[in-house]
Amino acid sequence: MIRIGVDVGGTGIQVGVVSADNRIIREESIHTRTDLPFEEQLREMADCIISAVNNAGLTENDIESIGFGIPGIASAKTGEVIKCTNMGWHHLPFREVFNRYLNKPVYIDNDANVAALAESVAGVSAGTSSSVFITIGTGIGSGIIINGKVWSGAHHIGGELGHVIFDLDGVPCTCGNHGCLERYCSATALIRMAREAVAEQPDSLILTSVDNDPSRIEAKTVFDTARAGDPVAVKVYQYYISCLAQAIASVVNLLDPEVIVLGGGVSKAGDFLLDPLSREYRKYILFNDQTIPPLKLAVLGSEAGIIGAAMLS
Amino acid sequence: MIRIGVDVGGTGIQVGVVSADNRIIREESIHTRTDLPFEEQLREMADCIISAVNNAGLTENDIESIGFGIPGIASAKTGEVIKCTNMGWHHLPFREVFNRYLNKPVYIDNDANVAALAESVAGVSAGTSSSVFITIGTGIGSGIIINGKVWSGAHHIGGELGHVIFDLDGVPCTCGNHGCLERYCSATALIRMAREAVAEQPDSLILTSVDNDPSRIEAKTVFDTARAGDPVAVKVYQYYISCLAQAIASVVNLLDPEVIVLGGGVSKAGDFLLDPLSREYRKYILFNDQTIPPLKLAVLGSEAGIIGAAMLS
Repeated sequence: MIRIGVDVGGTGIQVGVVSADNRIIREESIHTRTDLPFEEQLREMADCIISAVNNAGLTENDIESIGFGIPGIASAKTGEVIKCTNMGWHHLPFREVFNRYLNKPVYIDNDANVAALAESVAGVSAGTSSSVFITIGTGIGSGIIINGKVWSGAHHIGGELGHVIFDLDGVPCTCGNHGCLERYCSATALIRMAREAVAEQPDSLILTSVDNDPSRIEAKTVFDTARAGDPVAVKVYQYYISCLAQAIASVVNLLDPEVIVLGGGVSKAGDFLLDPLSREYRKYILFNDQTIPPLKLAVLGSEAGIIGAAMLS
Repeated sequence: MIRIGVDVGGTGIQVGVVSADNRIIREESIHTRTDLPFEEQLREMADCIISAVNNAGLTENDIESIGFGIPGIASAKTGEVIKCTNMGWHHLPFREVFNRYLNKPVYIDNDANVAALAESVAGVSAGTSSSVFITIGTGIGSGIIINGKVWSGAHHIGGELGHVIFDLDGVPCTCGNHGCLERYCSATALIRMAREAVAEQPDSLILTSVDNDPSRIEAKTVFDTARAGDPVAVKVYQYYISCLAQAIASVVNLLDPEVIVLGGGVSKAGDFLLDPLSREYRKYILFNDQTIPPLKLAVLGSEAGIIGAAMLS
């Protein structure tokens, strides 16, 4: 028997055929078509699944279950998508409609939760019973695993670490509030800090490395120029690390999981991110003379979305 | 059979004999004697338990278990007190030593966790399987219940909502960091805000109601004068409510429990606190067009410490 994991994104949908030992044995993808009616979108996904299964030399009968990771919130119990803005889905009976095209057990959860589950079963946090997975990209997402299960809240609205208040009356957030954590800890935040710094000090390597075009600054630009020793970049990098250290310590002060896993684009900075963070975040933990959760980099990368979705049950 | 709940505090220790239906049928107390050796302190507690049990017309044989709520952290698994600064206890084998004086099953947990458990089984959150209990007093404490069990973390250092970063580089905290949540949401914070306000506007009722002595301002002073319509007090009160609303919404964005329970001294303000908070905190929740956890006032009061400790298992 195999399980299907589907990673639903705003631009593309990845379908993976996952073996009993959590390996992807076949992967296919389709473009996201938000222009189509909901039913049609689901039919296209079902077709892609059948195709992937057949191309893996298997049939529909071999499918044990199908899991979907979506960039939104869903009720695992009812199979309803509650809200998924990128896809234009609001209160839709996902499982019921999908089962018209492919009648198998269907599970749905938020994509960060799904990635957290994947890492906690088959990735860097395998063998632990609690973990918090933090994706650091355009925004900040998180998935919480407690006693081996995803905890997304009683109303499926939890795991939104990015919108915890981190700086009272601070930087305005896209959500309408001020001082949300992702305004200080995401790639977007790092880029904002870099742009502010080069506006003051335009002789920085940050700016020259992007042909003096601030709009081309990426997270990687800051890491690369800090690594090269540019003083402006080093200062931005250190401040960003300090913000992220305080954010992670806050998660530990509240939840104290066995391990904290960092994923998303910014985590590609690797040890250049992890080493200073691991040194610095202890000082913001209240009981910092005790054993504290280690920080680890996610290992499954983009596969986490498929593997975790396939693990949903 | 009865269970014993012991509420260990820095000044006094309350012992309660708790019936099978979670009522305190006998309560006795002793003064905290941190001047005594650890063994002696535990022997005194055992003596007080025996006395309370006997005065309830029962014997040692009727005791099913003994639970302790302590103002610190402990390992439920090993029965070790990890750190309890008020009592001067650090890495002590509590269960092992206590069993020399009274050989019954012994459970220990943090006092906020214990109160959270009490409310979730026999109090305002009875019947729910997840809740976050927030005590608003000198500091901010919290207890997290997930799937009906206390979650205090993998290393017993969780539940410290008061030390989540809430205002980056903000007000210095007693813990050594800056901008901790309890610096904005505790009774201490409300008093600080009131003192700052009356320093600017000394004609406030806040100040005249304490004979112009700012050191006598309490949380209750602010609530009473705001209720009376004093403009300075109203402004302080509204800002404090806004802080607390953002703090509670942050807990919901991350954890989304079935219910949020508010306890501690500040919660005695009752509906004057709860009504504006309930109105305001929704706007800081990311998915605020969905069902969100209701806010409720704790109902067990000081009994929560005893009842919750007796419930530990």
